Amino acid sequence: MNYRVIFNTIGKVAIVLAILLAVPTVVAASLAESAWWAILTTAGISLVIGLTLTFAVRPRSKAIFSKEGLVIVALSWIYVSAIGALPFVISGMIPNYIDAFFETCSGFSTTGATILSGARIDELYATDKGLLFWRSFTHWIGGMGVIVFLMAFEGGSSNRGMHILRAEMPGPTVDKIVPRARSTAQILYLLYIGFTVAQIVALIIAGMPVFDSFVISFGTAGTGGFGVRGDSIASYGAACQWIIAVFMILFGINFNLYYLWILRKFKQAFKSQELWMFLGIIIVASTAVSIDLALSSLSFHDSAHDVVRHAVFQVASFISTTGYSSIPSNMDINAFPLLSKGLLFLLMFIGGCAGSTGGGLKVSRVAILCLAVRKELRRVLHPRNANAVKFEGKTLSDETLNGVARYFGLYMLILAATFVVLCFDSGEGLTVESNITAAVSCVNNIGPAYGVAASGYYMYHWFSKLILSFAMLIGRLEIYPILLTLSPSTWIRR
Amino acid sequence: MNYRVIFNTIGKVAIVLAILLAVPTVVAASLAESAWWAILTTAGISLVIGLTLTFAVRPRSKAIFSKEGLVIVALSWIYVSAIGALPFVISGMIPNYIDAFFETCSGFSTTGATILSGARIDELYATDKGLLFWRSFTHWIGGMGVIVFLMAFEGGSSNRGMHILRAEMPGPTVDKIVPRARSTAQILYLLYIGFTVAQIVALIIAGMPVFDSFVISFGTAGTGGFGVRGDSIASYGAACQWIIAVFMILFGINFNLYYLWILRKFKQAFKSQELWMFLGIIIVASTAVSIDLALSSLSFHDSAHDVVRHAVFQVASFISTTGYSSIPSNMDINAFPLLSKGLLFLLMFIGGCAGSTGGGLKVSRVAILCLAVRKELRRVLHPRNANAVKFEGKTLSDETLNGVARYFGLYMLILAATFVVLCFDSGEGLTVESNITAAVSCVNNIGPAYGVAASGYYMYHWFSKLILSFAMLIGRLEIYPILLTLSPSTWIRR
Repeated sequence: MNYRVIFNTIGKVAIVLAILLAVPTVVAASLAESAWWAILTTAGISLVIGLTLTFAVRPRSKAIFSKEGLVIVALSWIYVSAIGALPFVISGMIPNYIDAFFETCSGFSTTGATILSGARIDELYATDKGLLFWRSFTHWIGGMGVIVFLMAFEGGSSNRGMHILRAEMPGPTVDKIVPRARSTAQILYLLYIGFTVAQIVALIIAGMPVFDSFVISFGTAGTGGFGVRGDSIASYGAACQWIIAVFMILFGINFNLYYLWILRKFKQAFKSQELWMFLGIIIVASTAVSIDLALSSLSFHDSAHDVVRHAVFQVASFISTTGYSSIPSNMDINAFPLLSKGLLFLLMFIGGCAGSTGGGLKVSRVAILCLAVRKELRRVLHPRNANAVKFEGKTLSDETLNGVARYFGLYMLILAATFVVLCFDSGEGLTVESNITAAVSCVNNIGPAYGVAASGYYMYHWFSKLILSFAMLIGRLEIYPILLTLSPSTWIRR
Repeated sequence: MNYRVIFNTIGKVAIVLAILLAVPTVVAASLAESAWWAILTTAGISLVIGLTLTFAVRPRSKAIFSKEGLVIVALSWIYVSAIGALPFVISGMIPNYIDAFFETCSGFSTTGATILSGARIDELYATDKGLLFWRSFTHWIGGMGVIVFLMAFEGGSSNRGMHILRAEMPGPTVDKIVPRARSTAQILYLLYIGFTVAQIVALIIAGMPVFDSFVISFGTAGTGGFGVRGDSIASYGAACQWIIAVFMILFGINFNLYYLWILRKFKQAFKSQELWMFLGIIIVASTAVSIDLALSSLSFHDSAHDVVRHAVFQVASFISTTGYSSIPSNMDINAFPLLSKGLLFLLMFIGGCAGSTGGGLKVSRVAILCLAVRKELRRVLHPRNANAVKFEGKTLSDETLNGVARYFGLYMLILAATFVVLCFDSGEGLTVESNITAAVSCVNNIGPAYGVAASGYYMYHWFSKLILSFAMLIGRLEIYPILLTLSPSTWIRR
């Protein structure tokens, strides 16, 4: 293990975190909020840690293998969550450190699960916009990735980064857009910034307050889900809800496709099976939920437009794993009819496309799993015939097929383990269903789903919150980095 | 496809069913119940169908490949469920055919899910013991297998049966106990009969009524779960509950091990990793549930013996996928504390050992899945090292590892599909949780679990019941036979 390069890179991440913290400091200071010093203090702490690590631990060799890549990514994410939580604690907004750590993990992992009640968020909106800005800004950073950010904007040469990029980017296979890892990172971030700016502008034009437009766009871009109103997105107008719904879908699509579109390789981009599956699922699910809502006795019965908007919004929110809700708080998703709730539950597992900011299993992984299963069925029927499995125009290797099937097994084991830990919690109102939902919601980075999870995670014991924090990071980084970093066999030399 | 051999074999199964139906006919007649003629009529119908198929469709070749084996097993099980349901309909006990089909699928698949309410069962116990006997007898037949029964007792030579045996026996790999399929089937059934008789005797000695001893033993042996009292096992004494708990565990163990014990190959038998895992899970779960129940405010607080008995009974019932309950109906499992409910929920997925009558994924499959996942984790860490994975003293081939991982993917997809179909149901009181539980319970052949499932399946629409019926058969036959028989590609010649 190349310890020096690991700590040196984390040092750089610490410096990046300090720079990023400057943004909410400015926001808080310009709004004359007292919390600016809490954010600045944290920036200072991170800067000192960063400079110490960067200059004290100079790597002798820059060689990074798969193992180092995983460890760097995992430790970087744990670092930014652990230190990024300090402004909330120092300012007194979230006095308990575990709560603040949960909130920050939820932010960076783009989950959006919160320990704040709706009423408390409304309160903070009046007094602490700087901290709410930071809370949503973590979504934006986490969406495309902390290390990808570092890689895109780092001064020096960093061609060694493909292992790291692979560990941080979601999906069963990672395509380099361009040969160099650094250029890939830059292209991704430029696209990401472009879309985010587009959404901010659209929301401002649609009449959303400027501050809200920024933070809601951060939450959409990262497919996070932190809002700044107690009722999430419900109190903004229909136009804003449509804009957010469309952008949730856009951010759930593989960014490589956007790059192909820019290069005018339309034919290649539109050949993506994953894209059509993703859009197909959204259309089918939206239609089903619309009909189900229209037939139900819920009170938005009076307008067909309302029904369709709420259906599309919720479907987009769940499949992109954002977690925003357009439902007025006097109704909430728990009152949805059974079919809608059941479909939304399953969408949580599917998630966005590979290479998007969405969480979940990813559409392509679900598709490959189905193909692997079909291959297995054929094998049982005709044991001697070997059928090739094609996806996205390429023949899938057995390694990919089996890797996905094993990943799925691991994913379900982690869901089960998270669920069991939550069952030890004696918090009020917790049920088997609420614990299933919370585990599914956190591992898939949805956050505010339904069940107990809809009303915030404050009823959980601190130990459960800690486990859920790691579950969120595990989900965002697709299991391996966190799990391997926490496993002793990674560290023991044999 | 060798159609002739398929229909010929189903003809034989039909004759076997007619013979089996003679048993409840005698029971009903000797108790002077009017239903004997309904059972006898059904036996007559099946005999006619059986003789027609056996003599009219003589196979030209006895060659059976994997495909024919799967189709024979699937069609046989659908046949016995479809015809075995007739006594309930003809007698008027369950006037609706779909309900009766559900009940019979639940019987043969050893699920134990019932559309009868507790009060109705108490009523039938007074008037229709013959039909209740048949209902439980289906558990006993289904536990070890319909075709295995045919094979064990068929007069002619049947050395072609290994493909069929493999399709009907549960578990990721099937070991022949002895080289000949027929001898294997005979040994299995002799062991099965021996254990069943032992339980009947033990229950009679413990003071259970003779009729109850028979039907409860059938339900235990097949790990089914149909009871003949409205409150399942709760009203029998503590001694009976202990006996049933022990036998549920015994019937959850691989029968090959018993054969090894009889051959005095103790060392080989006790080397079974699956056995120790199975017992280990039971001990850990029973301890956890005992402590959880003792700390809870439930009313069996007063006696430590009660608490331990209920804990062990429920753990044994869930992991063996039997579904009996020792909890008095004024408390029921829904009132259990969260941790107990959560653990029991997970036990439903694990199930018994391979080669036992238990359902679920099977302990060995879960173990192999964990090993496959660990191998995948190691592969990520050290991409160039190939580690061999050992289980039960043998190195597992990649084919087995990947087969299990894909089986698990398929299994989860079937759970998800069953769940979605149930969500279309507008039955009263159905929730996301009750549908998850019902799907998990039926696919894993548990039956009376908790949630809505505890109080019977009568609130579901007939279409849901039909889907659940097939889900139960799919679960019992481990997916492939039913799924492939229902898929057009099996039947279309290319």
